[in-house]
Amino acid sequence: MERFDQRKKDVLSKEDKSSIGSWDEKIRSLCEMLNSCENYYTTSSCAGRIVLMVDRNKKEEGLFRFVSHDKININGLLEEIEKLDLEEEIKFKQEPPILHIACRELKDARKLLKLALKGGWKKSGIISCSERIVVELNCSEKIEFPFVEGGRILVSETFLDSVVKKSNENLTAGWKKIERLRKECEILG
Amino acid sequence: MERFDQRKKDVLSKEDKSSIGSWDEKIRSLCEMLNSCENYYTTSSCAGRIVLMVDRNKKEEGLFRFVSHDKININGLLEEIEKLDLEEEIKFKQEPPILHIACRELKDARKLLKLALKGGWKKSGIISCSERIVVELNCSEKIEFPFVEGGRILVSETFLDSVVKKSNENLTAGWKKIERLRKECEILG
Repeated sequence: MERFDQRKKDVLSKEDKSSIGSWDEKIRSLCEMLNSCENYYTTSSCAGRIVLMVDRNKKEEGLFRFVSHDKININGLLEEIEKLDLEEEIKFKQEPPILHIACRELKDARKLLKLALKGGWKKSGIISCSERIVVELNCSEKIEFPFVEGGRILVSETFLDSVVKKSNENLTAGWKKIERLRKECEILG
Repeated sequence: MERFDQRKKDVLSKEDKSSIGSWDEKIRSLCEMLNSCENYYTTSSCAGRIVLMVDRNKKEEGLFRFVSHDKININGLLEEIEKLDLEEEIKFKQEPPILHIACRELKDARKLLKLALKGGWKKSGIISCSERIVVELNCSEKIEFPFVEGGRILVSETFLDSVVKKSNENLTAGWKKIERLRKECEILG
């Protein structure tokens, strides 16, 4: 068996190590489509999310105070805010979809990248092309701002109303891009 | 002359088409360093910036209402806010440094990408590898939120104080990464 095929088998048989413990439903069919192509397999994916997290420069475990992979509403958010420890420095983030895909050869990476860029995945590129060839697909719709600092919440409910609306719009735009890419990726099979 | 060399000559002799009309000073020496290497040339660059811009899905000309490539202070920002047309939907953005670099061969792209990822340019990748090989280097420190909507400013001065502080910190962190990369890129020559 070729090394690529062996690694694909290993990766896809491993248990999901993500914090939600399984594929994000909204990106599952795109992942399945890619994994059904002989020259690709996904190594990580997220359909986009809204989080409240402790603001640190370095990634560490246990920084998330709220995570939603779905649209949110202002009342639900306000309830989450009630639970926050205001002594922590916390930021709000709405993140776009992201996918890491291992590719058999450079030409496979190129094909996928071209489809993605055409489909509005503006922040995409080949992030590794030595031993393993890996493409990162990422969209650009994002919101990020300081939320809790100095013992208090920095923003008003009016502002949060607008942020919730935009965040939901951005998530929906991301899901549409995922669905579009799934259709376009049919030619890769 | 090889096609790469011809294109490099053409690109570097062209007038700068960016909105500020010249290389951003804080990234100039990194660009000069890369352009002095025979296997690389830069096609666009920004050392990071803080902007107020009209919120549209598509990029268009004339959307910027305020642009700073330097640190800002709250009073300067408040003065800019005075000038805004509140009938427009406006967002605040602090963007990290970004660079596009054409590379002669894939191995040159790989070398540069490795240095950049090591130096904290987390959102970097090869964005084109067909006719031209282009690497995008990008950092991840970012702030972005809705600012003016429905005829009014959505945020308080307290919040802006915090945003100004974070934005300046992010810009400074970006400049440090530029300087570090310049030093590391000396081995590419």
